[in-house]
Amino acid sequence: MSTEIQETTRWHGNGKTHGARSGGSGVIVHRLDIETTKRVEIRDLTTLVQDMVRSADVDAGLVTLSSMHTTTAIFINEPQTALLDDIEQLLERLAPRGEEWKHNDPRYSDCDRQNADAHLRAIVLGSSVTLQVAEGDLVMGQWQRILMAELDGPRTRQLVLQILAAR
Amino acid sequence: MSTEIQETTRWHGNGKTHGARSGGSGVIVHRLDIETTKRVEIRDLTTLVQDMVRSADVDAGLVTLSSMHTTTAIFINEPQTALLDDIEQLLERLAPRGEEWKHNDPRYSDCDRQNADAHLRAIVLGSSVTLQVAEGDLVMGQWQRILMAELDGPRTRQLVLQILAAR
Amino acid sequence: MSTEIQETTRWHGNGKTHGARSGGSGVIVHRLDIETTKRVEIRDLTTLVQDMVRSADVDAGLVTLSSMHTTTAIFINEPQTALLDDIEQLLERLAPRGEEWKHNDPRYSDCDRQNADAHLRAIVLGSSVTLQVAEGDLVMGQWQRILMAELDGPRTRQLVLQILAAR
Repeated sequence: MSTEIQETTRWHGNGKTHGARSGGSGVIVHRLDIETTKRVEIRDLTTLVQDMVRSADVDAGLVTLSSMHTTTAIFINEPQTALLDDIEQLLERLAPRGEEWKHNDPRYSDCDRQNADAHLRAIVLGSSVTLQVAEGDLVMGQWQRILMAELDGPRTRQLVLQILAAR
Repeated sequence: MSTEIQETTRWHGNGKTHGARSGGSGVIVHRLDIETTKRVEIRDLTTLVQDMVRSADVDAGLVTLSSMHTTTAIFINEPQTALLDDIEQLLERLAPRGEEWKHNDPRYSDCDRQNADAHLRAIVLGSSVTLQVAEGDLVMGQWQRILMAELDGPRTRQLVLQILAAR
Repeated sequence: MSTEIQETTRWHGNGKTHGARSGGSGVIVHRLDIETTKRVEIRDLTTLVQDMVRSADVDAGLVTLSSMHTTTAIFINEPQTALLDDIEQLLERLAPRGEEWKHNDPRYSDCDRQNADAHLRAIVLGSSVTLQVAEGDLVMGQWQRILMAELDGPRTRQLVLQILAAR
């Protein structure tokens, strides 16, 4: 369940990144590369995001964490070990891997990953979360964590995080 | 279906709250404590949020309403009485309470609330909504309402609402 | 699968729209009217949104695209033809049209559209997406597209898009 940043790039879209860091304004963007290890896997990214927010020196604003993929998802819940198994069970219940999906059928589709279930599960879970920042920190409840669902791994997955400061 | 604010706190993270109120800029945050009365219950928070937006004196921007819990959800739809029953029926269909979830099984989990269904339903519904503000008001369709789903009550639930003004 | 703007209105909520266009600040709002042609239909709005973002002259910020309806949804995935059929199949699996929903039953409901399935499917898919803007363009992955699901058409559907520039 550990999380790693394989690469972090700070984009300088409008030249205001420095201002954002020192004065609580502007926008900061991080690109995260996450290496997953299984076909279906749920990763806790909270500490990673929290560290980025804290080091951003932004008093208040919004944080948006977006998956760049159609077979991963980002959502909020509690990564208790037994519950993570239940989430995988829920996904299998909602969009079973073995169902006769057209996306997996060479008569209808040129996709060779046979990953219809992964797309459908990603749609149900959602591709991004938008969280609040207040007093320089993420606004989250005691048990809430930011989770990434790998649904068709293992692969290297790219996420993009934007911290938008209020003025 | 009535909604009440049990407590509203205006946070002063960056000292710009006053500016936000009087000049249409900055960020305003409200903490909402909502007392629910049943295990599963859907509450309409639209009027509450609308009042907060209107009193914020913000011309344009975004409003983010976030649950601080892993067994409540925030979503948009129409709280017609018959449909509310259907939504509960949908949730039971997607994540049945009586299923043999590991989170409810003392062999795998130390959670004594037996609330796996509530976590799973919250994941499907989503933990927050982000809405647009234009001309000082929420941008919503005629039948759209902001709904909170209590999924493991009754309890006092905390939500946080942020109004982020555009500049 | 083609998309059309039937009408686009630029709102001038705070008189800063011009600044937004020319200086990379403020907020720009577009109202989109989309005519759908079937009861259930998934439309790719990416090019439309991309064009609006590019012409907005905003370096960095957020884009929120919101449905104004309780029986349409906005989500992110890949509109491969076979997969679109699978998404409709998933929706039928999660909230079957023929189920005995109370919203469709005259004993409990005055709704004459018999569209409980459409409401429930919209709740699962979500009513809006919030995307990042960086370097003047949408931040999206190679296969990601912005999709609108018509769930109770054909009708003319209204969406509202807000581009919020960071400062």
